[in-house]
Amino acid sequence: MNYNIVPLTELINQFARLPGIGKKTAQRLAYSILKQPPERAHQFAEALINAREKIHFCSVCQSLTDLDTCQICTDERRDHSTICVVEDPRDVMAFERTREYNGVYHVLHGVISPLDNIGPDKLRIKELMERLSDGTVKEIIMATNPTVEGEATASYISRLVKPMNIKVTRLAYGIPVGGDLEYADEYTLARALEGRNEI
Amino acid sequence: MNYNIVPLTELINQFARLPGIGKKTAQRLAYSILKQPPERAHQFAEALINAREKIHFCSVCQSLTDLDTCQICTDERRDHSTICVVEDPRDVMAFERTREYNGVYHVLHGVISPLDNIGPDKLRIKELMERLSDGTVKEIIMATNPTVEGEATASYISRLVKPMNIKVTRLAYGIPVGGDLEYADEYTLARALEGRNEI
Repeated sequence: MNYNIVPLTELINQFARLPGIGKKTAQRLAYSILKQPPERAHQFAEALINAREKIHFCSVCQSLTDLDTCQICTDERRDHSTICVVEDPRDVMAFERTREYNGVYHVLHGVISPLDNIGPDKLRIKELMERLSDGTVKEIIMATNPTVEGEATASYISRLVKPMNIKVTRLAYGIPVGGDLEYADEYTLARALEGRNEI
Repeated sequence: MNYNIVPLTELINQFARLPGIGKKTAQRLAYSILKQPPERAHQFAEALINAREKIHFCSVCQSLTDLDTCQICTDERRDHSTICVVEDPRDVMAFERTREYNGVYHVLHGVISPLDNIGPDKLRIKELMERLSDGTVKEIIMATNPTVEGEATASYISRLVKPMNIKVTRLAYGIPVGGDLEYADEYTLARALEGRNEI
């Protein structure tokens, strides 16, 4: 005998399809929806559809926006001669949280990864090159992740950009602020030593 | 400068309102929705509304169902003379997974907890008493959680039911199957000793 409450099973399955949500958590989340007033379920449903329908990629930097061109790209107070190249829209938010960066961004939507069959043509590199063609950009900051793929992508793009007489920089490697030297891995420590600055 | 993508923020907030989902996880989940095809967001939205609108409490056992009376209560192959009383609809599913129980259920939707201002009138005890009035029920299994509140609720209900000449039983306490004696707490071990059986 198998008793199946179809609408509940369907909701649990939807939650379980989300990344990092297992069967048990999905059940807990589905039950929590049932305990809320119906308006809450409607608001949630509306937020899902709204976000999916209204948000798309910025026509300039390829980050997420609900406008044609995102607020950062249209902000005249920002320095449009410096582009910070990142892998993911979430990295844009990470930089914005620092409140230290005043340039603009370009989101690649991934990194070159031959093992996953992702070549340069699958990233938003063409769109980046188009932005560089009018000569306003003076510096490209490569801010891909410090992984093998992130490094490879950074050096691939730097090889494309350097002949255009644009400065290409890479984020500094070193020990994280508040970190403990004892627990730093040898590669990070070696890079921190290599990149030491006079104080 | 604060750049806010309203539909995205709204979706993140909806996820963050779910139990056990923090801000970071909510962001990750919201981004995963944006990466899926729009149909997925629509399916999810529909599942949310469907579940919330169609699922309600069974008119007999107070468990969840999308019918008037749940499939367990209407199943004639089940033993309707035994009622297993649980706190939560999820406990029903836990018992069903054992495939060992063939009686029916009654869901209290909580336990007596004076500290949280939950008295017996806030639980589905009245509905349970109504089910006992026609004399078909021979045994009540109290399967509330082994907590102070669960125990108090079990003994409260057993005091109500006993004068009606209905057998009231409680789940056995003991060491969990596959557990390690060394790590069992002293109360559990004492109860396991007390309830020992001849082999």
